[in-house]
Amino acid sequence: MIKPRTTPGVMELLPRDQIAFQRMLDVIRRNYERFGFLPVETPVFELSEVLLTKTGGETERQVYFVQSTGALEQGGQPELALRFDLTVPLARYVAEHEHDLAFPFRRYQIQRVYRGERAQRGRFREFYQCDIDVIGKDALSVRHDAEMPAVIHAVFSELEVGPFTIQLNNRKLLRGFFEGVGIADGERQALVLREIDKIDKRGAEAVRATLVGADFGLADDVVDRIMAFVQVRSTSHADALAQLEALGAGSEVLEQGRSELREVLELLKGYGVPEKNYALNFSIARGLDYYTGTVYETTLDEHPQIGSVCSGGRYENLASHYTKSKLPGVGISIGATRLFWQLREAGIVSTAESSVQALVGLMDDARLPDSLDIARRLRAAGINAEVQLEVKKLAKQFQYADRAGIRFVLLYGEDEAARNVVKVKDMASQDQYELGREELASVLKVELEQLRAMGKR
Amino acid sequence: MIKPRTTPGVMELLPRDQIAFQRMLDVIRRNYERFGFLPVETPVFELSEVLLTKTGGETERQVYFVQSTGALEQGGQPELALRFDLTVPLARYVAEHEHDLAFPFRRYQIQRVYRGERAQRGRFREFYQCDIDVIGKDALSVRHDAEMPAVIHAVFSELEVGPFTIQLNNRKLLRGFFEGVGIADGERQALVLREIDKIDKRGAEAVRATLVGADFGLADDVVDRIMAFVQVRSTSHADALAQLEALGAGSEVLEQGRSELREVLELLKGYGVPEKNYALNFSIARGLDYYTGTVYETTLDEHPQIGSVCSGGRYENLASHYTKSKLPGVGISIGATRLFWQLREAGIVSTAESSVQALVGLMDDARLPDSLDIARRLRAAGINAEVQLEVKKLAKQFQYADRAGIRFVLLYGEDEAARNVVKVKDMASQDQYELGREELASVLKVELEQLRAMGKR
Repeated sequence: MIKPRTTPGVMELLPRDQIAFQRMLDVIRRNYERFGFLPVETPVFELSEVLLTKTGGETERQVYFVQSTGALEQGGQPELALRFDLTVPLARYVAEHEHDLAFPFRRYQIQRVYRGERAQRGRFREFYQCDIDVIGKDALSVRHDAEMPAVIHAVFSELEVGPFTIQLNNRKLLRGFFEGVGIADGERQALVLREIDKIDKRGAEAVRATLVGADFGLADDVVDRIMAFVQVRSTSHADALAQLEALGAGSEVLEQGRSELREVLELLKGYGVPEKNYALNFSIARGLDYYTGTVYETTLDEHPQIGSVCSGGRYENLASHYTKSKLPGVGISIGATRLFWQLREAGIVSTAESSVQALVGLMDDARLPDSLDIARRLRAAGINAEVQLEVKKLAKQFQYADRAGIRFVLLYGEDEAARNVVKVKDMASQDQYELGREELASVLKVELEQLRAMGKR
Repeated sequence: MIKPRTTPGVMELLPRDQIAFQRMLDVIRRNYERFGFLPVETPVFELSEVLLTKTGGETERQVYFVQSTGALEQGGQPELALRFDLTVPLARYVAEHEHDLAFPFRRYQIQRVYRGERAQRGRFREFYQCDIDVIGKDALSVRHDAEMPAVIHAVFSELEVGPFTIQLNNRKLLRGFFEGVGIADGERQALVLREIDKIDKRGAEAVRATLVGADFGLADDVVDRIMAFVQVRSTSHADALAQLEALGAGSEVLEQGRSELREVLELLKGYGVPEKNYALNFSIARGLDYYTGTVYETTLDEHPQIGSVCSGGRYENLASHYTKSKLPGVGISIGATRLFWQLREAGIVSTAESSVQALVGLMDDARLPDSLDIARRLRAAGINAEVQLEVKKLAKQFQYADRAGIRFVLLYGEDEAARNVVKVKDMASQDQYELGREELASVLKVELEQLRAMGKR
């Protein structure tokens, strides 16, 4: 006998949690499609040679290699590896199919990715990423940078996770500012930002001590200016514009970043994103080196400890390893597995009602054909229905529906048959009522639509 | 520069084909949910020790093993392997979560599986399986065996793949019949059936020669009876019952199989499955040894060369490697990747219209806020809309929509603004008309619903 178990670091859910998770993925997908993004799926494995282009980062990502039985026996380096994100597969896809795609190419991709993380609570070796990207050929208008927050707003409003803020920054603005205080080297900028990131943990004074210390050797007034800069958070649309203004004149690259942020802010209004849902945050840089313009993070106002739930940005060139074409793009990613896990930990999402909306009970074998007929009518009306195929005690049937989270139990016994009605028990309200067999499906359909509209399902 | 490419044996699609494929998966999922099946997803990899229980078949399936960078460097046997079907993960899942599940447990699972097949046209190393199973604890009524064809009927009717037939048989009936002609050994029965399977290729006489020859040594009249038996195909519901009757008295196990088939046939009527969509076929055994009762195959009447598009059956015990509990079940599987590939080869599915339903064009930068507002209204009404964010020649915008398969192009220039109307071009009919800006979304919504109802989308 083998103990049934999975490897640590995967999220496997019981059905009611899976239903809740599936609804989250459905909301994300629906909103991605609403904004005109097209679906792409790529294989779970890529050729190792194609996946590992040695731009760094791969080793930290602990790639999983794949070998068939035959290849394993022969030895040698594995030919295949599991994707560790959706960006490299996108680059490969766009380069491979370049001549069959229309640009700007707008794709969404909702698939799992793999990282050989050490086993640790809240760390996943397999997790969903839900990405959108717009890829231009040669050039891509900064207007697309404003689309991303519009999509984020649509997704997170519908996910009902409470108030959230889309934090905006621009790498050019950041670069221009740092150059202005004499830190021209990109890596040095990144190191300073990493120190600044520790303010919450270490305190401002400790961080200041490090920056003026031997490692960085920055002047006091430079540290002052950096600290003031990275603490900028806008409080409204007008304030965001004012904060940009308040930076004063800067280098060409700073001016470029400022003008891009202004344009993005202006378009956000056009997209109908409420000003309470976005803010400038000059501390945001995003880890990846490859962002070059607008960058995004999204935080839940009431759950800051969760960190960013949706991040991304603008990059200069998607697929330089695979094609000579210049392919600038902008994109965002939602790590749905981690998000779901954290929302559940924080008590923001709970176990869903069942995807089964009605259970047709059975009290008498002779009534089975009636049960099947009733279920058929419900299904034809678009209601998900399960039929109790074996006679059980009534109390057991109710208990089953209750535990499974099924909203309605329908009964059709001798008494109901005589009057051609179906008894309906609403498991949530405990109401019982009767409906004519012919009208049953349409009435329950309206009932379920009303519950959905009221956000009760 | 690395050549962008994937490993052979995977199906990667361009967006319009991906949309068509996604619609197929959506139809399957929707119908699985209609019948009250609950979603389950399992990790792509299982612990090798758990996955490879040495019941045979694994080596032929050419398992893919998985190792992280660190494990690879250390050497040793891989701890993880990719699932090669959804049945073993289901067995592990049910055994692991046994005490948290309600039985009969009804689950659907739509995920990809992996087999190290040799590269060959139409053979896939990565493909979707779409499975449903009902698992009982200790026992499971044969009534559930009738649910499977009801679901198959619902799925394939909605997939619009032309007329199809669900072929039914029962392993007990088969076993009873073979025992009746003196072939009691299960493996020998399987070998005879495999020969019979070659009738189409080799001809009846060649097969007969083999069966009466040295390898099998069967008597002439036994071969006659076998050949007559396996050629039984019912032509109607009444004929199916008559064919069962015509078998005459048999052993206990034959009688059991006959009575199960009778009950399944009777219930199919209750489920509302038209009799043209099912038939007895006594030649069906299914490769896997583990089926013990009802077995199913589904064929497209006009495309027999495709073979079975949905198969499955009843099994005695799902998870004997993982638990002492007896878990009988019944299930079916659709190999969606292969099905889609074959339907496309046969010209039955074609490239879909885009998931984007409307393109809001742009003729003048000053009108961009109006474009965004129009798109926002469309999206609020549930219409998938893309906005042209940069001014292009009108002809180019129409050409883009045409190639992308976007149904409606909306224009709002100076002239339209003056009258507060939006110009609509239907790319399919080439009709052009104007709608008030306020009514636009609701009118297009109705239009799209009508197109859907007419099966045009």
